[in-house]
Amino acid sequence: MNSEFNLEKKETISSKSTAYRNFPMVPRVVFGRNSFSQLGEILLAKRKSMDAPFIFLVDDFFEGNGLTHRIPLMFNDELIFISADEEPKTEQVDALVQRIKQNYEELPSGIIGIGGGTLLDLAKAVSILLNNKGQAKDYQGWDLVHKPSIYHVGIPTISGTGAEVSRTTVLLGPEKKLGINSDFTPFDQVLLDPDLTVTVPKEQWFYTGMDCFIHCIESLNGTYLNAFSQSYGEKALELCEEVFLGDLSEEESRDKLMMASWHGGMSIAYSQVGIAHAMSYGLGYLLGIKHGIGNCLVFQHLGEFYPEGVTLFKRMMEKHGIQMPKGICANLAQSDFDTMVGVSLGMEALWENALGKDWRKIMTPERLQEIYRRI
Amino acid sequence: MNSEFNLEKKETISSKSTAYRNFPMVPRVVFGRNSFSQLGEILLAKRKSMDAPFIFLVDDFFEGNGLTHRIPLMFNDELIFISADEEPKTEQVDALVQRIKQNYEELPSGIIGIGGGTLLDLAKAVSILLNNKGQAKDYQGWDLVHKPSIYHVGIPTISGTGAEVSRTTVLLGPEKKLGINSDFTPFDQVLLDPDLTVTVPKEQWFYTGMDCFIHCIESLNGTYLNAFSQSYGEKALELCEEVFLGDLSEEESRDKLMMASWHGGMSIAYSQVGIAHAMSYGLGYLLGIKHGIGNCLVFQHLGEFYPEGVTLFKRMMEKHGIQMPKGICANLAQSDFDTMVGVSLGMEALWENALGKDWRKIMTPERLQEIYRRI
Repeated sequence: MNSEFNLEKKETISSKSTAYRNFPMVPRVVFGRNSFSQLGEILLAKRKSMDAPFIFLVDDFFEGNGLTHRIPLMFNDELIFISADEEPKTEQVDALVQRIKQNYEELPSGIIGIGGGTLLDLAKAVSILLNNKGQAKDYQGWDLVHKPSIYHVGIPTISGTGAEVSRTTVLLGPEKKLGINSDFTPFDQVLLDPDLTVTVPKEQWFYTGMDCFIHCIESLNGTYLNAFSQSYGEKALELCEEVFLGDLSEEESRDKLMMASWHGGMSIAYSQVGIAHAMSYGLGYLLGIKHGIGNCLVFQHLGEFYPEGVTLFKRMMEKHGIQMPKGICANLAQSDFDTMVGVSLGMEALWENALGKDWRKIMTPERLQEIYRRI
Repeated sequence: MNSEFNLEKKETISSKSTAYRNFPMVPRVVFGRNSFSQLGEILLAKRKSMDAPFIFLVDDFFEGNGLTHRIPLMFNDELIFISADEEPKTEQVDALVQRIKQNYEELPSGIIGIGGGTLLDLAKAVSILLNNKGQAKDYQGWDLVHKPSIYHVGIPTISGTGAEVSRTTVLLGPEKKLGINSDFTPFDQVLLDPDLTVTVPKEQWFYTGMDCFIHCIESLNGTYLNAFSQSYGEKALELCEEVFLGDLSEEESRDKLMMASWHGGMSIAYSQVGIAHAMSYGLGYLLGIKHGIGNCLVFQHLGEFYPEGVTLFKRMMEKHGIQMPKGICANLAQSDFDTMVGVSLGMEALWENALGKDWRKIMTPERLQEIYRRI
């Protein structure tokens, strides 16, 4: 869940006296096994002209894969493979936008992101920047986008990030890692085809699923929650437990994890993440550790804050034989710890959500460093 | 849940080989106690001109009530009180549309429905007919609306119908009771303020909540279900159990029932109702019994089909001291039974969902009449 970055405007949920968010929802969704085969028909109705292409941004994991051949290309539509090895960057968005503008006389009919959180976030950002001047970094923050994005479609091929339904696109900029959080960020159309997740490698399946699980534990145990987000978060959590601890068929498991991700993403409307995300942000900043595994590396050591959640997490790890790397922070210098601790404690809304208004008295820099040291 | 009428095109979900629906979701939602006070700000951004009014269709239950004074009227905005004593009619929609067109030179900036299912359905239908020629009855059916509706906002003041989130508006026409089921039916904006349900009379609270509960039991036990609808239906059901059998504060109870209705409405995307709704339709047709209580009158006698659901339902009735009318069908003539049975068995999709493809062998006219006789 890319949510650590999308609550910059924390007062909208932390204070009862201010307005509630007018939350934008994805206005169209198809769910079902093999629903990917409906993509051509869906896009047909949205094509602006023969000269306005659909641009498909696809995880390069699928290059040469059967899925690629099923993408309904027509006219001058273009398929661009992109590696998801690194988290998405503002420069990458700018380069894609420039390339598209140079190659085509008309603005595209739409952008279709096919992949995990990285590809989905890139598709969102490119669709915004194609219709808004300047660079991606100019829009990192809360509600800085003022012109609608172009039509964009999200098709997740891995479940857990919630990027398919969230209001943000988290990008690593020259100065900050921050979401473009706006009403124009959410997809116009989402296609949820659980069959697309068949090829996910097991560890990635686990870590990305845990992104959803950990998010739910944090938001349900937070102080910001309201009944809207609670109901979505509880359902997402239940589905995660069914998937990772239950006895489902593989098909059912894929179906349910896709719905867990969806509901987990919806639950962000009026909630906030917590300690694992705040700490994971520090790990990511200093060591470039990716979001999913970063959360897991941290979360295993948070039993004193989320006792039931961590117990469940350890059972899930054990059941699926997941071995996490150890000693990640063993050889760090004090200056490294200072950096991580500083970055992490800067996520004030997350700490306040987790520990209440007096969080600074509870989570001192020393205590936080001590937890980092165990990772 | 007005759902018995919105699955005319049953093949979209009953057959695995056909396409999945591209389900339209409400694109904007605010949730929170006292969020009604944000309505003025929300509408301000949508006002087309000083001459294009907002028309508020409000349940006349609120006439003279404090809520009325909080409605943010400006310029030539108009407030129209409407009784919800009877179910909404196509003629009523046509009369409202004619009145609005006669009174204003410009099309309204929007229609705001404030009330229960009846008011919400009227607001949806009026917003469609203001931008589509002809009469409301011309659009009863599946996907017969081809021009967008005007901007419309739904503000429920009672929880359970799911009308705030559904794709249909069920109207009693000259020949048939049927939904205008289209992509242009859902609200553009929903405002969920649980405080607005404070004034609901207890029996209405119960029967309308049971609309949601019974819908969930039927869809979760049906043959059409998929994981998308299942996850929403399960959550709605859990929330109903908390509300009607748990030990919540009144505030929490209102919050959770509002979310139950929301999730219950979402669950209709890829599911279908069942026996109670099919039978209630017969009762409504012959005797004019309203939807909420009609479902309850039927459901209590369906223990052989929904054993767990009916047990829960009876516990809920007992806990809240609900006394349902008895002997409703005691003095009916055989011709009356024939009518009800005929109307009910005409709802083929509902029966197939409940009992499978061979439903006609299971639910004979004689057996159905026998159940009606007990009501």
